[in-house]
Amino acid sequence: MKEKVYIYDATLRDGAQGEGISFSDTAKVRFARLLDDFGVDYIEGGFAGSNPRDRRFFDDIRKERLGHARVTAFGSTRRKDCDAKDDPQLAGLLAADTEWVTVYGKSWMLHVRDVLRTTGDKNIQMIADTVGFLRAAGRRVFFDAEHFFDGYKDDPAYSMRALEAALREGAEALALCDTNGGCLPHEVFEITGKVCEAFPSVQVGIHTHNDSGLGVATALEGVRAGARQVQGCMNGYGERAGNTNLICVIPALELKMGFECVGPERLKKMREVSVVTDDLTNQRPDPRQPYVGRSAFSHKAGAHVNAVQKNPRSFEHIAPEAVGNRRNVLISELSGASNVMMKAAELGTDVENLDKRQAQAILEEVKRRENSGYSYESADGSFKILLQKVLKKHRPFFELEGFRVIVEKRGRDAPCISEATVKVKVKGVTELTAGEGEGPVDALNCALRAALTRFYPEIGDITLTDYRVRILDPKAATRAMTRVLIESGDGERQWGTVGVSENIIEASWQALLDSIEYKLYEQHGG
Amino acid sequence: MKEKVYIYDATLRDGAQGEGISFSDTAKVRFARLLDDFGVDYIEGGFAGSNPRDRRFFDDIRKERLGHARVTAFGSTRRKDCDAKDDPQLAGLLAADTEWVTVYGKSWMLHVRDVLRTTGDKNIQMIADTVGFLRAAGRRVFFDAEHFFDGYKDDPAYSMRALEAALREGAEALALCDTNGGCLPHEVFEITGKVCEAFPSVQVGIHTHNDSGLGVATALEGVRAGARQVQGCMNGYGERAGNTNLICVIPALELKMGFECVGPERLKKMREVSVVTDDLTNQRPDPRQPYVGRSAFSHKAGAHVNAVQKNPRSFEHIAPEAVGNRRNVLISELSGASNVMMKAAELGTDVENLDKRQAQAILEEVKRRENSGYSYESADGSFKILLQKVLKKHRPFFELEGFRVIVEKRGRDAPCISEATVKVKVKGVTELTAGEGEGPVDALNCALRAALTRFYPEIGDITLTDYRVRILDPKAATRAMTRVLIESGDGERQWGTVGVSENIIEASWQALLDSIEYKLYEQHGG
Repeated sequence: MKEKVYIYDATLRDGAQGEGISFSDTAKVRFARLLDDFGVDYIEGGFAGSNPRDRRFFDDIRKERLGHARVTAFGSTRRKDCDAKDDPQLAGLLAADTEWVTVYGKSWMLHVRDVLRTTGDKNIQMIADTVGFLRAAGRRVFFDAEHFFDGYKDDPAYSMRALEAALREGAEALALCDTNGGCLPHEVFEITGKVCEAFPSVQVGIHTHNDSGLGVATALEGVRAGARQVQGCMNGYGERAGNTNLICVIPALELKMGFECVGPERLKKMREVSVVTDDLTNQRPDPRQPYVGRSAFSHKAGAHVNAVQKNPRSFEHIAPEAVGNRRNVLISELSGASNVMMKAAELGTDVENLDKRQAQAILEEVKRRENSGYSYESADGSFKILLQKVLKKHRPFFELEGFRVIVEKRGRDAPCISEATVKVKVKGVTELTAGEGEGPVDALNCALRAALTRFYPEIGDITLTDYRVRILDPKAATRAMTRVLIESGDGERQWGTVGVSENIIEASWQALLDSIEYKLYEQHGG
Repeated sequence: MKEKVYIYDATLRDGAQGEGISFSDTAKVRFARLLDDFGVDYIEGGFAGSNPRDRRFFDDIRKERLGHARVTAFGSTRRKDCDAKDDPQLAGLLAADTEWVTVYGKSWMLHVRDVLRTTGDKNIQMIADTVGFLRAAGRRVFFDAEHFFDGYKDDPAYSMRALEAALREGAEALALCDTNGGCLPHEVFEITGKVCEAFPSVQVGIHTHNDSGLGVATALEGVRAGARQVQGCMNGYGERAGNTNLICVIPALELKMGFECVGPERLKKMREVSVVTDDLTNQRPDPRQPYVGRSAFSHKAGAHVNAVQKNPRSFEHIAPEAVGNRRNVLISELSGASNVMMKAAELGTDVENLDKRQAQAILEEVKRRENSGYSYESADGSFKILLQKVLKKHRPFFELEGFRVIVEKRGRDAPCISEATVKVKVKGVTELTAGEGEGPVDALNCALRAALTRFYPEIGDITLTDYRVRILDPKAATRAMTRVLIESGDGERQWGTVGVSENIIEASWQALLDSIEYKLYEQHGG
């Protein structure tokens, strides 16, 4: 039986302190569910005591039934100038109504003196009071010793006193923080070892940052020295250079160090967790991200590709599938074609009659389109239409004769109006309709539905549930190629469609058309 | 006197094997000069024996007078089926005409058996022959032991034999490679220690990769164990997840471990080296890159900003200036009044006369706007304009009377055209101009410039360098609130601006206007 290392995800709190990172209210809940499914043990939900938006999250998450993960509310020790019971921040922490609470306190005299501007003894009292107060209110408490390593390097006795105070009052676990991310791996190993030796029966956690490019290494060295909880963020989000990247920590613990975190089955979702996290915060995925990045197992043609074909271990430190990733070489044409066959079958296309040459033709069309910016990973709807077109089975339910969108603003503070006209030919009849909307794409959508609903009333069931815009070549600024992804649903099914153009309106238009065509295919057959 | 660790840059060879990385011929020479100025000791120029473009580099660089750095030509041991003197790859290595040559050879039996498909003894002979041949031709030789750590873990005696063979024939330095990037820091420490012990008078180098997110840590552990040369790439370029990032290794060695690499004066150019490298290869700079990234010393949480004002060490592991970076205060809903004051000062606003009530008013306006979707973290330009407005110092350089954008498409495969008209009043004169573009925003941009350039020719210097679109509430689909961020530059400065609306055109318009107003403020004063 493998020994367990607990995973404590701080993305919603520490991660959200990163530049350019923010989660909408709905994204927070979706993210927490994602972590729960993945097998994360603790989810730090936010600064419960001081931020109204974080407080909303605790209300929302209480209504969800998480299967495994525990949500913790995060806050600080009491203010230096009032009792714990009178501190509004601690009242907010309790109001979050969680089983677990994480409080951070100072363990470095530099901070006590220069930032808190109090004495060492008074700070210790603040820690003790806060933990005691939360315990008395029935909470289970994690104590995060902020700047623990810097503090220990300056004055080991003082930083140990901070830990002792928290434990004496009933904290159940300690997290040792390299808050500034400045420590070297061997320093973290040595100091964590001392703490584990001093408190052999306590769960020790390790919470480090990546300011020196060593966030993963310091976390792993902490575990080697005895820590059994790792705190970090997905994709290494976080203030400055980010927190320890859990995406790198979890596979190392599972695959290289013999521990169990989420288990081998869930580990295969590692890539998905990374991709969805970036989606929820609208970050560009880092192609070079270890383990899960698009390039992580990419081999440029030549000696490496050849070697990997002979023995994958020759240039791959783990099997990419173990973390849900895949090798990215020009694999044999045959295996490429079999991917297409699998996907086509999944979409309900009759693959019995699909021969190898057809599969090859589809594969080439997909590659050609991916080269110009399309992406079919989350656009099953558009992929199905592409299939039909290449197989010459495409049946046009309507023909576009043209559209025009006008966006107009009269005066600096006047509202901006959007109008669209659409001309389509359906079953021999030409329809010219108009629509207005919140913006140009919304206006187009209204006009298009007005034109088609008479002939295909089922279009009325479609709701657009997501609309995403990605600029593919940011340096080209307003002339950049743009990819639009639309997610649609009709109560039974969900489908994604994609459009690409230098013109965002046209890219949106393509995705809108595919969305409607897909629905009509499903209804009337291909 | 500090002990020296030699820096061996492999960006032009190993780095260029990364997905999406390529250097033009002129960029290679510029990059080599940059490294030379920075004080790098060795520059691996390329695969001299097998790549014609790499060969051109050696011809070009011979004409340059590098002050300090030595350029090395890179190649492999001889083929298994011919003598060294008959191997065209080795002839190419000699033709590069460099003082130093780096050859890599196999030191892992898995590779010898499965990839080379030869015997252990024959591989050792290949190493010995190759080094001997190059020495006889007057070259000084570095021997890169490929997969050394994986080899040592499987069979220590065999991998040591590979090193011995190279040394016996006259190699002057050994590089121990974690080619697959799969080793843990403590493994690299232990194994490097054994090698340094076995060959106490030889310069040992460490060459690791980042597949486990541990590239920096393994290099530093190698040095701790006795290695005195580090091989890596600028910005961590390289195949798969990249090579060891020298941008993180050099400051750690200099500022944290007491070694000398380039010295404290040149270290201040670290950020410049990173930025220029990305420019030369057309890569997007990673804002979270440790030490040198835009976010590396960005503080967002109000408590952190407050603490850094009291003592920078409280949340900064090094002084940002030591690597040519600077502190960056972010304005967000997590901010307090101290963020606003520091940011205002940074932007050149006279904060002497800014009282607390005004700072509070600015903060409230920021929070109000963030609630409706604005974000000022990467929009300094818009923040400055907001400041001026709240302080009632805003000076309108022009007045908008209206705009209209038309996007039109006639026929399914016809091109989509975009036209805009803009009406503005400048210095009492009303201008009505038109523009066309790749899409609606591009057309607006053209029309706006046409209207204003006559009055403010300096607008001609602005280039838009980035355009980002974020859908704030994806579930509202095409009716969702949209945030547009535009990055502009004029050759001297870079600034970001933001716009928010349900209408993507209007959001873009706001960001465009702010971009131009910011430029005019800088030119003409607020």
